[in-house]
Amino acid sequence: MRETRLDTARVRAARQVIDPVFLDTPLYRCEALEPHLGCAVSVKLETANPVRSFKARGTEVVASLLAGGGSPAVVCASAGNLGQALAWSGRGRGIDVTVVASRFAPAAKLDRIRALEAGLELVDGDFDMARERAAAIARHDGIRLVEDSLDIETCEGAATIGLELVRTAPPFDAVLIALGGGALATGVGHVVKALAPGVEVICVQPLGAPAMTLSWRRRRVVTTDSTDTIADGVAGRCPLPAVLDDLLVVADDAVLVREASIMAGMRLLLDHAGLVVEPSAALGIAAILEDRDRFAGRHVATVVCGGNVDMDAYRRWVGAAPSLGS
Amino acid sequence: MRETRLDTARVRAARQVIDPVFLDTPLYRCEALEPHLGCAVSVKLETANPVRSFKARGTEVVASLLAGGGSPAVVCASAGNLGQALAWSGRGRGIDVTVVASRFAPAAKLDRIRALEAGLELVDGDFDMARERAAAIARHDGIRLVEDSLDIETCEGAATIGLELVRTAPPFDAVLIALGGGALATGVGHVVKALAPGVEVICVQPLGAPAMTLSWRRRRVVTTDSTDTIADGVAGRCPLPAVLDDLLVVADDAVLVREASIMAGMRLLLDHAGLVVEPSAALGIAAILEDRDRFAGRHVATVVCGGNVDMDAYRRWVGAAPSLGS
Repeated sequence: MRETRLDTARVRAARQVIDPVFLDTPLYRCEALEPHLGCAVSVKLETANPVRSFKARGTEVVASLLAGGGSPAVVCASAGNLGQALAWSGRGRGIDVTVVASRFAPAAKLDRIRALEAGLELVDGDFDMARERAAAIARHDGIRLVEDSLDIETCEGAATIGLELVRTAPPFDAVLIALGGGALATGVGHVVKALAPGVEVICVQPLGAPAMTLSWRRRRVVTTDSTDTIADGVAGRCPLPAVLDDLLVVADDAVLVREASIMAGMRLLLDHAGLVVEPSAALGIAAILEDRDRFAGRHVATVVCGGNVDMDAYRRWVGAAPSLGS
Repeated sequence: MRETRLDTARVRAARQVIDPVFLDTPLYRCEALEPHLGCAVSVKLETANPVRSFKARGTEVVASLLAGGGSPAVVCASAGNLGQALAWSGRGRGIDVTVVASRFAPAAKLDRIRALEAGLELVDGDFDMARERAAAIARHDGIRLVEDSLDIETCEGAATIGLELVRTAPPFDAVLIALGGGALATGVGHVVKALAPGVEVICVQPLGAPAMTLSWRRRRVVTTDSTDTIADGVAGRCPLPAVLDDLLVVADDAVLVREASIMAGMRLLLDHAGLVVEPSAALGIAAILEDRDRFAGRHVATVVCGGNVDMDAYRRWVGAAPSLGS
């Protein structure tokens, strides 16, 4: 395949600096889901760890490098999960962590960032405004800015999931990956395409936050003025050119799904797999629900990438989900 | 320590015949739970696998021996989880599996047993009546009877959880284990006492199904006439003498908890750890809620042993739980 910014040998090396509590996560068939989806489904479960998302794979790499270099302080913008993960990784290594987030981010995510002893600054806007503010802090304070999906360590950390996915024999027919900033999709996609090129890599984004998918389709950066989705973890407006370039190499497809499908996916995962997931983590199931013919009879893996939800909102979503697919 | 029926070398060997999808399950701190419990809590998560309980560790050992010996058929009594696990382990090895269960067992468990292509016979009584019927089938058909907790393979399989628990350094201060027939408690307890004897092994049973705890306290088998608990997975009336003997060796304590505490534990695990668990799997958290002073400031591990619930009942339980502990 054409080159990306990632290197599989470096991804293997990344495994060595990531706390094992985040590695070798469960990967298993959910047969009880399958009658509702019409295909074989395996989940790669990234929620059963101290920060309840895959993001710590990347922040462990970032923090181990910072700790090795003696850098005492770091700042990042976050929709919530990266900040929580960086706070966790930094706390254990004596790194001073500041997180900038939208004040509209889920309270559960913001509470955990505070509980993990990170500094938290809220902006009166969305994730892309938080990114600007974090960059300003980094410039002013002269500290390291961690940019999710742009910083190669965040992609390499996510890519370690790919190493665990391609171990299966026979390989999956397709892998469904939530698409936001792109670290997860390009990281996992790189490894899958490098080591199991026959596996279809399909990225999934909400119709209400389609910037990266539109960019992938038009092969150039497309920004949007706003986002409108419950999938807070993938709601960005401004794709990064370098990440798009990688995505163009590794993604076989990028699809957009409706909010109702995301909620139906969350409800299916709860009712038939016993999994509490945040909206972004249900995007893969939503994609199957919206295009059953495409997946019929195939074996699909989906990365359940996070489980940080405000429970009141979650109860509304899974309670109000239509019976689509059940 | 005094001898039990278990042997740590055999437990290590058991790992070799268990499908890796059931091994090396997540073990992690749940800090978001801790303000509600007053102690450090780690969960050993046995729900993220194809049968959503720890029982397949044992049935993998049973089925691998049967397949090696050419035995084509097996029958067991089950509260639901053992039957599902045996059906899974048998299906992959061409073993004909019959499960006898109470018709009052959760529909979710019975449905999964059927879906896994096992024969299912329902008795109009409780688990101990299902045991009698399974024994009669085994005698009549001349096939292997798998007796949970009595058959050493079921204990050895459960004991592999212990191997994974004692890897932590520093070790936990206490391990909380659901107590039903006793395979989990004696298996995990044996390994913990053999390899990390300073860790307190505490078994937890519902007040409404106290037979084994009463037996442990009186050092002789005590049966009860009935059970009254939502924790269907541990609701037995007739403890097995050989299992009690082992439990007397490995358990430091056996405690009984109220139904309200079990529901509060389920709700805490849902709201603050994002975990959907069956009542038996919340017994450890219930024990902390009922005796905070005992655990204050200590690091406690609890085995989240299963997640097979009827969702309607589950929603009632976690919705109706009192605010105990939150």
